[in-house]
Amino acid sequence: MNYFSSDFKLGILGGGQLGKMMLYETRKYDIQTLVLDPSNDAPSRIACNEFFQGDLMDYDTVYEFGKKVDVLTFEIENVNVDALAQLEKEGKTVFPSAKTLKTINNKATQKLFYVDHQIPTADFKRFAYPDEILNAVKNESLAFPFVWKSARFGYDGQGVKVIRTYSDLEGLPEGECIAEKMIPFKNELAVIVARDSKGNVKTYPVVEMEFHPEANQVEYVICPARISEEVAKKAQLIALKVSKAYEHVGLLAVEMFQTENDEILVNEVAPRPHNSGHYSIEASYTNQFEQQIRAILGLPLGNTESKVAGIMVNLVGDENYTGSVVYKNIEKIMAMEGVTPHIYGKRETRPFRKMGHVTIVNKDIAKAREIAEQVKKSIRVIAE
Amino acid sequence: MNYFSSDFKLGILGGGQLGKMMLYETRKYDIQTLVLDPSNDAPSRIACNEFFQGDLMDYDTVYEFGKKVDVLTFEIENVNVDALAQLEKEGKTVFPSAKTLKTINNKATQKLFYVDHQIPTADFKRFAYPDEILNAVKNESLAFPFVWKSARFGYDGQGVKVIRTYSDLEGLPEGECIAEKMIPFKNELAVIVARDSKGNVKTYPVVEMEFHPEANQVEYVICPARISEEVAKKAQLIALKVSKAYEHVGLLAVEMFQTENDEILVNEVAPRPHNSGHYSIEASYTNQFEQQIRAILGLPLGNTESKVAGIMVNLVGDENYTGSVVYKNIEKIMAMEGVTPHIYGKRETRPFRKMGHVTIVNKDIAKAREIAEQVKKSIRVIAE
Repeated sequence: MNYFSSDFKLGILGGGQLGKMMLYETRKYDIQTLVLDPSNDAPSRIACNEFFQGDLMDYDTVYEFGKKVDVLTFEIENVNVDALAQLEKEGKTVFPSAKTLKTINNKATQKLFYVDHQIPTADFKRFAYPDEILNAVKNESLAFPFVWKSARFGYDGQGVKVIRTYSDLEGLPEGECIAEKMIPFKNELAVIVARDSKGNVKTYPVVEMEFHPEANQVEYVICPARISEEVAKKAQLIALKVSKAYEHVGLLAVEMFQTENDEILVNEVAPRPHNSGHYSIEASYTNQFEQQIRAILGLPLGNTESKVAGIMVNLVGDENYTGSVVYKNIEKIMAMEGVTPHIYGKRETRPFRKMGHVTIVNKDIAKAREIAEQVKKSIRVIAE
Repeated sequence: MNYFSSDFKLGILGGGQLGKMMLYETRKYDIQTLVLDPSNDAPSRIACNEFFQGDLMDYDTVYEFGKKVDVLTFEIENVNVDALAQLEKEGKTVFPSAKTLKTINNKATQKLFYVDHQIPTADFKRFAYPDEILNAVKNESLAFPFVWKSARFGYDGQGVKVIRTYSDLEGLPEGECIAEKMIPFKNELAVIVARDSKGNVKTYPVVEMEFHPEANQVEYVICPARISEEVAKKAQLIALKVSKAYEHVGLLAVEMFQTENDEILVNEVAPRPHNSGHYSIEASYTNQFEQQIRAILGLPLGNTESKVAGIMVNLVGDENYTGSVVYKNIEKIMAMEGVTPHIYGKRETRPFRKMGHVTIVNKDIAKAREIAEQVKKSIRVIAE
């Protein structure tokens, strides 16, 4: 197909920040784009050719939108999968596929999938509702501590809770869930795999999430991870195995734990560009958003290597402020070497709301890490 | 001023490809943008917040547009300069300034400016119309060969002609012009200078235009130029002198000749992002479009160094084709290492029409040059 002409149309479900960054890459190739999003103020609105407002979970809305385009993709998992499946049945190209998305969207199914495919993952038990967990603890088939995870649509730490006592079990939301063994890990790692419909694959370097020593929150995403070559190779091979098992087309971000004894356990995956790959805009030969376009359109996959080391810092709303956002000291960090802020354009800040990210690149990773710390210490997302 | 809020508005005169690439950078900072362009199909339309259709040479149109924004800039020189001057008089921030643009927009004035400021440039004579040239040749105050240049709005080689005989003088368009001494040069070089209103400056590395050995057309823009450090330093110092003389704010692309005996002569300047800086999107820490935004808004200037070597190849319409454009072998070049095509989205190709560009980056400049040659040999811009 001639993508580089006015006739071809790419559809994206979801008009958020990830979609917007993907759309910038489509402009390089002059690909015509249509976006569906429930919000009339969706960030993508400014970067697509045609915008449609509508509910991403509504079968008819998604189906009708899909009929308008040549290739359909999504930038968010919460979409009507049945409509995707029907479009596929009618011969529409949908990448990643409805089947992949269906498996991933339920954490219990996703974990069972790993077990079925001999992919290492933390031990777990599946439950229809939290009261079943309570019974399991009482009859001693499950012991404290463990991690409760909702099977449906947990996002950014929501739908996840460490359970140490009976009282932690109180007030858990209803619905299917899993209880996962707590894994003491050395590192949280991620590998993004790009795969096309012919099975060609490329993996990005392993990245490392560095946690705040006290707050237990990811502070930095660091590429390349400061781990041994052996562990890096193991992580990449496991990520490739996961990608192949899903017969995934597009990007698959595979999040993993490196245990105390250097085992790699798959935590979860995201079938799209991912926060752990934002560094690639500044650091990689082919950034993850361009790679996603290449992969789903069947264009040659680009070089996943890095030009320079990259570190990403999320910009989240300060916990003490709500209101019209102000990026305090943004000019100060812009004066630092190799620092690029990405402001997502949300007008209102709230405690911990994701408002943007900052990338720090440098030929020397230790220098990048130093500057990243200065960035983190300087910038604050507050309200007027 | 808080640029990173909804109240601030940046206005851009011209909605072409340069403006579009500048607009992508404004999205990173979530800066609100307004664009004025005569064409309803302007490439920038898809990337700005508000689009206005109107004549860039019309005083009232430009003036009224300028009143709507906080900072006004342009991506094309053919705009109504009197309207800019009036807006400045009323306190509006206009960068680059009306005065700079007025000097640059007339090639005779521009050349005289260099003479006045002791900036080396090829010898020339100024004429009110071509018949004056004829008289000068006849009375032997001017000798063949020389280069005729129209004083007004020559663009991409138009308005320029080498004059070797009386017959070459026939049919020259009327109007003010110059006759410039022909300079046998070793290299055509360019330096982009970024300067803010406080006088802070940063220069990009010297780039080199490599010409096709027979066709005498620029084939490759190469960064860094393969010249001695001494010549590079001289070129950068002269570019800085030019920028300071203009008291220019924003980007200034300074095109220069390196003569047979390593003199540097200024040819002409462009007060905006420039074709010779396109390589920076993939190769530089701060690309020229982001730098332009930083400079005109008074944000800290970014690092102008390169992460990797970069080579740019223009994509122009094949001379034998007119019609609906096809990019033949584009998938082939996308499979090459470090190759990024930029398609400008023009639907129709014509002989020599600028349809896009391709950047090749690599840690090794010799390797980049090899791949650039493969790109050049493979890609063809033809019609259906």
